[in-house]
Amino acid sequence: MLLVRQEIGDVLRDFRLQKGRTLRQVAGDASVALGYLSEVERGQKEASSEILAAVADALDTPLSVILGEVSERLAIVEGLALPMPSRVPDTVPVDLVSGYGSELVSR
Amino acid sequence: MLLVRQEIGDVLRDFRLQKGRTLRQVAGDASVALGYLSEVERGQKEASSEILAAVADALDTPLSVILGEVSERLAIVEGLALPMPSRVPDTVPVDLVSGYGSELVSR
Repeated sequence: MLLVRQEIGDVLRDFRLQKGRTLRQVAGDASVALGYLSEVERGQKEASSEILAAVADALDTPLSVILGEVSERLAIVEGLALPMPSRVPDTVPVDLVSGYGSELVSR
Repeated sequence: MLLVRQEIGDVLRDFRLQKGRTLRQVAGDASVALGYLSEVERGQKEASSEILAAVADALDTPLSVILGEVSERLAIVEGLALPMPSRVPDTVPVDLVSGYGSELVSR
């Protein structure tokens, strides 16, 4: 069974790490127990709406952005969306470059 | 404080009504108590991830779609998105029609 709390936990942790903050810092700012937040991040506890609002605030991230990210990840698991394509590499293989449009410029 | 459970409740009710189903039908299909589902819809109770999955299933609606709609409504409340524009009216005021392109066809 697909559980929303697991995706919410993953997203909260990812946003926290993205902002380079520790569990202790965010728990402190949100006034929630560190152990509780840790369990929420691991998908082991449901976060109440009040906790979710406080953590979102501590992460300086709107609830809509957090839930939007949760929705996108759920869509991938549900097979309704594809994972984001990997970023275009900075370097392109030479044979790919030289092959581009070759049928137009050859000869 | 912006509470996710209120938006979730509204969205679940809207999807249910959209599908023309009663609270009793959905509660039965999801195997949750009717009174509990009613409280969830009114934003008075948090739905656990298991309940949310069962209700989404009973509504034949992916969790990603439900959470996506919740995210969009939160964004409006947070001032990060505008409400969907109202549908184009079926009738257009006559002066609006007659005024259209008048500078091109007049005289």
